[in-house]
Amino acid sequence: MNDLIEQYTVKREPFYRPVANEVELFDAAYSARMPVMLKGPTGCGKSRFVEYVAYRLRRPLITVACNEDMTASDLVGRFLLDKDGTKWQDGPLTMAARMGAICYLDEVVEARQDTTVVIHPLTDHRRQLPLDKKGEMVEAHPDFQIVISYNPGYQSLMKDLKQSTKQRFAALDFDYPEATIETDIVARETGVDIKTAEKLVQIAHRARNLKGHGLDEGISTRLLVYAGQLIVKGVNPLAACSMTLVRPLTDDPDMRDTLDAAVNTFFG
Amino acid sequence: MNDLIEQYTVKREPFYRPVANEVELFDAAYSARMPVMLKGPTGCGKSRFVEYVAYRLRRPLITVACNEDMTASDLVGRFLLDKDGTKWQDGPLTMAARMGAICYLDEVVEARQDTTVVIHPLTDHRRQLPLDKKGEMVEAHPDFQIVISYNPGYQSLMKDLKQSTKQRFAALDFDYPEATIETDIVARETGVDIKTAEKLVQIAHRARNLKGHGLDEGISTRLLVYAGQLIVKGVNPLAACSMTLVRPLTDDPDMRDTLDAAVNTFFG
Amino acid sequence: MNDLIEQYTVKREPFYRPVANEVELFDAAYSARMPVMLKGPTGCGKSRFVEYVAYRLRRPLITVACNEDMTASDLVGRFLLDKDGTKWQDGPLTMAARMGAICYLDEVVEARQDTTVVIHPLTDHRRQLPLDKKGEMVEAHPDFQIVISYNPGYQSLMKDLKQSTKQRFAALDFDYPEATIETDIVARETGVDIKTAEKLVQIAHRARNLKGHGLDEGISTRLLVYAGQLIVKGVNPLAACSMTLVRPLTDDPDMRDTLDAAVNTFFG
Amino acid sequence: MNDLIEQYTVKREPFYRPVANEVELFDAAYSARMPVMLKGPTGCGKSRFVEYVAYRLRRPLITVACNEDMTASDLVGRFLLDKDGTKWQDGPLTMAARMGAICYLDEVVEARQDTTVVIHPLTDHRRQLPLDKKGEMVEAHPDFQIVISYNPGYQSLMKDLKQSTKQRFAALDFDYPEATIETDIVARETGVDIKTAEKLVQIAHRARNLKGHGLDEGISTRLLVYAGQLIVKGVNPLAACSMTLVRPLTDDPDMRDTLDAAVNTFFG
Amino acid sequence: MNDLIEQYTVKREPFYRPVANEVELFDAAYSARMPVMLKGPTGCGKSRFVEYVAYRLRRPLITVACNEDMTASDLVGRFLLDKDGTKWQDGPLTMAARMGAICYLDEVVEARQDTTVVIHPLTDHRRQLPLDKKGEMVEAHPDFQIVISYNPGYQSLMKDLKQSTKQRFAALDFDYPEATIETDIVARETGVDIKTAEKLVQIAHRARNLKGHGLDEGISTRLLVYAGQLIVKGVNPLAACSMTLVRPLTDDPDMRDTLDAAVNTFFG
Amino acid sequence: MNDLIEQYTVKREPFYRPVANEVELFDAAYSARMPVMLKGPTGCGKSRFVEYVAYRLRRPLITVACNEDMTASDLVGRFLLDKDGTKWQDGPLTMAARMGAICYLDEVVEARQDTTVVIHPLTDHRRQLPLDKKGEMVEAHPDFQIVISYNPGYQSLMKDLKQSTKQRFAALDFDYPEATIETDIVARETGVDIKTAEKLVQIAHRARNLKGHGLDEGISTRLLVYAGQLIVKGVNPLAACSMTLVRPLTDDPDMRDTLDAAVNTFFG
Repeated sequence: MNDLIEQYTVKREPFYRPVANEVELFDAAYSARMPVMLKGPTGCGKSRFVEYVAYRLRRPLITVACNEDMTASDLVGRFLLDKDGTKWQDGPLTMAARMGAICYLDEVVEARQDTTVVIHPLTDHRRQLPLDKKGEMVEAHPDFQIVISYNPGYQSLMKDLKQSTKQRFAALDFDYPEATIETDIVARETGVDIKTAEKLVQIAHRARNLKGHGLDEGISTRLLVYAGQLIVKGVNPLAACSMTLVRPLTDDPDMRDTLDAAVNTFFG
Repeated sequence: MNDLIEQYTVKREPFYRPVANEVELFDAAYSARMPVMLKGPTGCGKSRFVEYVAYRLRRPLITVACNEDMTASDLVGRFLLDKDGTKWQDGPLTMAARMGAICYLDEVVEARQDTTVVIHPLTDHRRQLPLDKKGEMVEAHPDFQIVISYNPGYQSLMKDLKQSTKQRFAALDFDYPEATIETDIVARETGVDIKTAEKLVQIAHRARNLKGHGLDEGISTRLLVYAGQLIVKGVNPLAACSMTLVRPLTDDPDMRDTLDAAVNTFFG
Repeated sequence: MNDLIEQYTVKREPFYRPVANEVELFDAAYSARMPVMLKGPTGCGKSRFVEYVAYRLRRPLITVACNEDMTASDLVGRFLLDKDGTKWQDGPLTMAARMGAICYLDEVVEARQDTTVVIHPLTDHRRQLPLDKKGEMVEAHPDFQIVISYNPGYQSLMKDLKQSTKQRFAALDFDYPEATIETDIVARETGVDIKTAEKLVQIAHRARNLKGHGLDEGISTRLLVYAGQLIVKGVNPLAACSMTLVRPLTDDPDMRDTLDAAVNTFFG
Repeated sequence: MNDLIEQYTVKREPFYRPVANEVELFDAAYSARMPVMLKGPTGCGKSRFVEYVAYRLRRPLITVACNEDMTASDLVGRFLLDKDGTKWQDGPLTMAARMGAICYLDEVVEARQDTTVVIHPLTDHRRQLPLDKKGEMVEAHPDFQIVISYNPGYQSLMKDLKQSTKQRFAALDFDYPEATIETDIVARETGVDIKTAEKLVQIAHRARNLKGHGLDEGISTRLLVYAGQLIVKGVNPLAACSMTLVRPLTDDPDMRDTLDAAVNTFFG
Repeated sequence: MNDLIEQYTVKREPFYRPVANEVELFDAAYSARMPVMLKGPTGCGKSRFVEYVAYRLRRPLITVACNEDMTASDLVGRFLLDKDGTKWQDGPLTMAARMGAICYLDEVVEARQDTTVVIHPLTDHRRQLPLDKKGEMVEAHPDFQIVISYNPGYQSLMKDLKQSTKQRFAALDFDYPEATIETDIVARETGVDIKTAEKLVQIAHRARNLKGHGLDEGISTRLLVYAGQLIVKGVNPLAACSMTLVRPLTDDPDMRDTLDAAVNTFFG
Repeated sequence: MNDLIEQYTVKREPFYRPVANEVELFDAAYSARMPVMLKGPTGCGKSRFVEYVAYRLRRPLITVACNEDMTASDLVGRFLLDKDGTKWQDGPLTMAARMGAICYLDEVVEARQDTTVVIHPLTDHRRQLPLDKKGEMVEAHPDFQIVISYNPGYQSLMKDLKQSTKQRFAALDFDYPEATIETDIVARETGVDIKTAEKLVQIAHRARNLKGHGLDEGISTRLLVYAGQLIVKGVNPLAACSMTLVRPLTDDPDMRDTLDAAVNTFFG
């Protein structure tokens, strides 16, 4: 078990710039072991935040990238065939419950309902995980907590969390960091000068205004970091922005023109 | 078997405040071993009620959170491969039938029809569970009883219990507790003072009136307890309510404004 | 084999009140080993009837509750892995064919087509069951018979028996028993006095008239027995009827009012 | 192999009354080992015909009742796990190809396309069956022939044989036998007198005229035999006809009245 | 390996009458090991052509009849369980790639996309087949070639080859042979006299004109051969044509009349 | 491991003619180990480009042709049964992450979402691949990089990468090479003279203008190479072009006429 805990411990402090009081609110929720839901757009720092608080709380972190084909067994565990017959293999959720980790289910709405239902008994006063197939009732470690992420922009009528799942979580809203903070992040993570970082952030702001007007999502902080990394490698800023801030986002010629124009305004 | 019974026994009396004569009606149904259906919205205390009556009746309780991907085998059991070949593993329903437990199928309409059909022979005069794959007929223990929960608000045309299933159950209606009882519950479970608990309950009442007018479900008692827990940890009541009573429920900006205004009325 | 026959034998005579000449017609069909289809609404006594005739004919009875996820292998059998390799395990239909039981497929239209097709060679002059996966041709025992049930009210265009299946069965119609017989059944099965039983039956008659006018099914005899059982346990008749005759059937407020009014007329 | 051939040999001459030159045409097709398709409604004698010609040709007959859930492996065979590892088990089609049997695929359009495609190399000049999973090419026995049945009334746009399958078969049309022949069949198979058999056949003729006008299929010869069997057991002819000729076919009250009236005309 | 090559070698020269320069074009494509697509209607000789060129080129031929339920594993191979654990079993495509066979995927559009994608690395400059599950990269034998067939008449919007697959093949168009060649084929394959063969071909020509006007496909050469075979066996030509040229094609009464009239014109 | 690296190493320098600064941009992205997305039509050289840069960077290349039926396990790995029980088998993505290869996921949008989600932790600051089923966290080799290809023309509303996946990649646009370069490629790869190569490229240009006006895709460079190969083998240019540039692309008679006319213009 100690080996496992070691393996899932965040070793170095992740770089995270708090935006508001989200760290304090999370601490309070964690001290009540309250399940927490992180809401916000792609690439705004939700996963980084979880790593940061796990590091601060000195808790191992088990992250699961949820998807449509993930089953409850992928979370809870399954029997594997061994030379001595079948042997139970804990899934990541069960491991987390046993070792007292923070279990982070990333983009949980992508998962099928059986995956979300499986967390119910872990998210109320019971704090139990029944392993029906094994006939074992796992009592969660006192330090265990569940965190899920959720991008409200994606939710369709067909794919949403059930109210009986939602009402098991306290929720924190996330958004792209404000300009000065984001500039600081881009400069620090890539090594570009502040001026270049500012330009990149300004391009992102223009693109984010296009969300819902031809773009499904704005330019994320991650893409700004990509652009900065290429510029630092000596790539022409126009080419770097085209490759990281325009081409990945859209194939619509008009939208590409609009974004290219924004890039030109700052680097042309 | 005794180990299993021990494992599923509710050890401490759960805190439950009866709302009407539901405990007496359940006792009468149990004394006839009549299958019971609990109807009511998310987070109003159905699961807690079952734990409470199981504790009172000194019966082990086996809870199954039903879901779309659950199969009849998940309930009844399956063969597992062992070093000596296949070995039968009872599912939770079979275990409950053998040990005389109360088997609680939570949100049973989420399950596929084969799951609901499998309980038919256990819910009429036969009280048997045929394990077709094993070629064994399990006669239910005299103390065995089935309880299911059912949230009428969820039922779509596509997903409902068949009449031939419904007509095997007596039904109890549940709703959020009335104000004074709910205030008492919130205060007792969180440690906030009565005044704060009253305010939280009043916010919930406002939100529950919005059900069907922009909200799919009202604020549950569980979320009120979450809010109280954060307040007791020293979180500002406005932030605590936002995080637990508003953000988890909805992403609609207008609805969030309405809920935030309700919070402000009491804590602003 | 004798153990199996013993296990599936109906030990005590089930209480069954014939409504017309259904017992004689079934006897004639059985004497020709003709497959029989029982048609009628939920809870009107079809399953009880099969138990009764199986008891009278001194034949073991193997009942299968059909469902959408049932496969032909669930009926016919499959290979299981053993320490000596794979071992064939007869399914309930094969067991019945070998031991000369009555095999009762309850709600057969719920099953997928492969399940219904598998009974074809057992329901014509061949009376054989080919176990394709095992390479064995099972000749049905001379006493073997197939009985299926079928609720005509359920049939949609998408889910019906094929004519090539239907035309392999003689059919008996079932309905709720007439008032005096049903009163007798309720009184005898619950211990309530005749007067109370009469009232319960009259409430059922009112509800059955609502079938197709807001109710999918009328109140079944089984639910009347539930109501009687609670009344005998000392539950107030209004509460007992609400819990067993109204709440399980419908969540529609108007329909509940109508049914509550019917209950009040007799017990108010 | 000889055991298998014995097991699938039709031991007694089935009672079959030729309607036209269908036996001679089949003989010619068989002598060229030409695949044959039998077309006609439910219960008109297609399966009986195949048994009859198999008996006349002294060829074993392997019948497969096709269904939606049948896979190519169900026809061709599969590996089973044995104490010495996996062992190949021939499916019915492979067995038939090896032993030189007539392989009769009943209601082949019910099967999925992979099932129909699997017969292609057996139905052209190659007369081979590749067992891809085993890496073996089975050359069909010189006496092997494929026969399929097909009810044109069933075919929907979604479910039909592909032209590249159809054009591998010669086709024979079947229909209910003409009145004198059918009367003879009913009398001979049940023991009723000719007069009663004539009446039953006349009822069938009336019902068959309703096909497409409220009935999906007319009354089959099989159901007439059922009626005769019950009458011979002493059941009142009106009850016998109701149970076998009316109730199984339809639940439509008007159509039932029409059929009951036809029964009354002859037995009332 | 040599045993396998022997097993898939075409032993006798198949009878094939070239229609145009298709043999020379195929030879040129084969000499560049270029993948080839054969396009044309059912039963016009595509499969025969592949056998013929495989015979001429002295290459083994591995044919796979594609279908909807075929998976990539059916082509590439899979692990089978053996007494020593799992053992890899090459699929037909892998066998062909290793032995330098012509691999003929018949009706490839019927297969699911994973089947078509699996051939991509074998159909460009790489000529490799990655066995991902085994962790082996198979380099195709220098003599290996892929040929696929494709009936353009079948293609729906839902089921077509992707352009990225199509653009990996050179294509040859096929159609029914012209009248004198087809007459020659029918006479030679059945033994009927030239005059009878001519009449059969003329009937086919009339039917082929109905394609798209009530018939999905015209009468194939294969069916003409069937008719000739029956006539040679002494069957009346009218009956033979009805059984082979009319009944298999259509159940539409008008279309049957039209076809019967065509038959009567020549044999009446 | 060294054996595996050897097996996936590109041994000879692939012939690749750079079109713009794509090689330099890729080098910069690789030096930051930034995930890269290659966008462009079928057969324009994306796969060749990846081979070329893998060769230049002296990195092994693992290519996966994605498809609808590919699962996350096909990428990540799975347990196989061995004589000593189950044994883990790395999938191609895991192999690539361990050995520091470039992993090229060709046509990634064809894959199901679970396949795309599985690459998330490998494409952000974590550079990890959790093997949930094995309970192992693979840290990517410092030289590992992910490259995906993506044909924008294919994307439907139903099948597109999620923004949270897209925003993990820098993107390079590809198109058919310009005329002189493409002529050079065709001449060099086939051995035809420059004049013939020019004609082929001009035919392609005419066809590419028809994209969206009756053709789904233009003629790819690969098909031009096919045409050249046949011409070099002595096939008449008209026949060679018909077989490689017209017949594979379309079955529409008008479109074929248009393309044939273009061929005639240059080779007629």
